[in-house]
Amino acid sequence: MFAALNARQRKFQMIMVAHGAHVEKFQEVLDLANQLGVPVKTADRKELDAMAHGHTHGGMIALAGPKPRLNGEQVVQLVEELRKPAMLLLIEGVEDARNLGFTLRSAEALGAHAVLIKKHLWDLDATEIARPASGAYERLPLAQIDTIEPLVKLKRMKVRLFGCIAGARRTIYDVNLKQSCILAIGGEKRGLSGAVREICDRFVTIPAVAEGASLSLSHAACIGMGEAMRQRLGGGAAPEGQDGGMVEQVEG
Amino acid sequence: MFAALNARQRKFQMIMVAHGAHVEKFQEVLDLANQLGVPVKTADRKELDAMAHGHTHGGMIALAGPKPRLNGEQVVQLVEELRKPAMLLLIEGVEDARNLGFTLRSAEALGAHAVLIKKHLWDLDATEIARPASGAYERLPLAQIDTIEPLVKLKRMKVRLFGCIAGARRTIYDVNLKQSCILAIGGEKRGLSGAVREICDRFVTIPAVAEGASLSLSHAACIGMGEAMRQRLGGGAAPEGQDGGMVEQVEG
Repeated sequence: MFAALNARQRKFQMIMVAHGAHVEKFQEVLDLANQLGVPVKTADRKELDAMAHGHTHGGMIALAGPKPRLNGEQVVQLVEELRKPAMLLLIEGVEDARNLGFTLRSAEALGAHAVLIKKHLWDLDATEIARPASGAYERLPLAQIDTIEPLVKLKRMKVRLFGCIAGARRTIYDVNLKQSCILAIGGEKRGLSGAVREICDRFVTIPAVAEGASLSLSHAACIGMGEAMRQRLGGGAAPEGQDGGMVEQVEG
Repeated sequence: MFAALNARQRKFQMIMVAHGAHVEKFQEVLDLANQLGVPVKTADRKELDAMAHGHTHGGMIALAGPKPRLNGEQVVQLVEELRKPAMLLLIEGVEDARNLGFTLRSAEALGAHAVLIKKHLWDLDATEIARPASGAYERLPLAQIDTIEPLVKLKRMKVRLFGCIAGARRTIYDVNLKQSCILAIGGEKRGLSGAVREICDRFVTIPAVAEGASLSLSHAACIGMGEAMRQRLGGGAAPEGQDGGMVEQVEG
């Protein structure tokens, strides 16, 4: 709850603490709530149990709005206002809230500026996403992308769209990830959608050695974003010129 | 079950198929069982239910010994017999079977030759490890390491031991992972044990950008092994000489 309050993204109506709960362990949260002007009330533990809808609560509950999602326009604006090359992650077809949570956690740790998610993913249980995300669900900008239009706009702003697919000739290590870019990763079953594939600037593969072996979506995303971070930290990027044709291809 | 049979590591006593089950969907498994001389019997579904101890079984059950684990001597032998630089992953302190499973899956995909696990990890539920491992649990050599002795032996064979810890001066990108090496990664709570830290040749960190952000154990391992794979594929390794002092340090 501290992460959620501290991220200042959700609207908090109230925080409720159970009668007889050890307030000391909530001190950090209560101090921050006080600072942000969020009212704190006490109530019977039974009342909290009922409000938690079967989730465990440990003696404290917040009445808060959902984590806000950016729309396409807001993602474009976020990229415009960045003072450095953007690193965005686009995810399609993840079917497991926990995997999505871990993906968000890695995305934040590896420097992604936002994660773009197709609409249906928002049907996943937010609590199940948030737990493995370890605070990243609250802090990281998440955008809901219903059409490819915002992606096309980003491409016009010279944000490169790299589609990770099996069997591409180039590997993730062969492309310049220091430039503003979107890494697009599809679900394990169907991969990237045709609509996204059609507008990719480059296809790249994440090499796996063993026959039959593969990476989960969250681990594939982790390798891709890790390589972007490595390049941005100054580690030997792809040779210049190798990607030379891309700008023309995009603008052409 | 196909992965388990095909890996030829476990001892299979028998495969049991429920009366009335659609045998077609098991054809691949039954053919392989036949080829390997594993007897196949049919039985009532209730009998299978009882034998599955509450796990779902989909109409087929195998009576098989546990996945065999290598001991320290066998890991040393495995490395001796490799005709290329070894890549081993040493894991300490993972507390979740599913995370361990995903780690094994990534390790196989990213070319690890074996995963070394501390004794207590074997108490985790094998079924819970195997499911997210997607066959890697059956195929990848797993070793149980109770003492640091095998690690010391491997170090004498010039296998470098890199300990991944937060705040190390060097990053994972600064060291030469083309040479035979062990990547040691500790659990999220306590990190690497003192015993392992004491014999590490180098400490390296996996950089994370955001304040408060971090990678899970399986994702940290993924970044480390992915970097080893990148270097081994020929992508700009660490400058020579940067690691120059290490051999002497190890042998001294």
